[in-house]
Amino acid sequence: MDEVIADTLTEHLTRYNRDHKDQIIKSDLTGKSLWQVIPTDHHSALEMYLRTEGFFATLPIMPDSQRVLQAMQQKYEIFIASAAMELPTSFAAKFIWLERHFPFIPPSHIVFCGDKGILNADYLIDDNPRQFRRFKGEGILYSSPHNALITTYRRVENWLDVEKMFLS
Amino acid sequence: MDEVIADTLTEHLTRYNRDHKDQIIKSDLTGKSLWQVIPTDHHSALEMYLRTEGFFATLPIMPDSQRVLQAMQQKYEIFIASAAMELPTSFAAKFIWLERHFPFIPPSHIVFCGDKGILNADYLIDDNPRQFRRFKGEGILYSSPHNALITTYRRVENWLDVEKMFLS
Repeated sequence: MDEVIADTLTEHLTRYNRDHKDQIIKSDLTGKSLWQVIPTDHHSALEMYLRTEGFFATLPIMPDSQRVLQAMQQKYEIFIASAAMELPTSFAAKFIWLERHFPFIPPSHIVFCGDKGILNADYLIDDNPRQFRRFKGEGILYSSPHNALITTYRRVENWLDVEKMFLS
Repeated sequence: MDEVIADTLTEHLTRYNRDHKDQIIKSDLTGKSLWQVIPTDHHSALEMYLRTEGFFATLPIMPDSQRVLQAMQQKYEIFIASAAMELPTSFAAKFIWLERHFPFIPPSHIVFCGDKGILNADYLIDDNPRQFRRFKGEGILYSSPHNALITTYRRVENWLDVEKMFLS
């Protein structure tokens, strides 16, 4: 979900730059997480955003993700999985966000988990390569600055790439 | 989770009998859900309990489930999966309940989902045979009055049975 259909990073950058009068952009983050480029004493601010009521409610949607996922549903069974267990307070907001922006995904096909190795699926599109380690199917890396240097997996840059890979 | 490690039915019966001056006991429910034995115009009361703040926070624990699961962790990798998607308001309370009573299960091994067919596991212990339909491993039916007449699956009556099946 985060960094694949929900643009959590943009929301984080917007809030961080606004509150700290900084101008970090995505290309500053190649191979690194936002946590790695800001001063340690600002980490708690980032943590705080995640715990803010409304952070997950207002996340921007990744371009084309709605249209492509809905088209893919004609050919594939689609589940949305979110590694939400580190932030239990986010469940309800994430669920509402999905209901609002991806109403064609039924609740039965939403999964909140920690280790995505527990998923029984053929493909997993994720920005986090750690989630592929124990995944039984094929992991497809969704590009995000933090994973830019990883070469081990098939990669998609955006949802137009996903469309090409799965629907052409 | 519900009806396997959390005794949701006992909590439901306690609240229902108290509020409706009724005396329904578990043996009245053989082959039926509580929804099927109470008058239709009382259904909304049952729904209401589920939406009550605190319902999931105070659920009784199934006898021996903590001890047996902790012992099983020496030999198996254990995930707790809850079909929570029909009640998104219950996520946080369920998570807190698990943290409190099953602290040895790490958050990475908790899954909230709808259709448990998405789980990649060898066994699924569940009271709901519907969850076994698309499950890739073996479904083991945890006895509950509503499933008493089902003969299609291996069955455990309680956690001592689970212990015998997996640890002896």
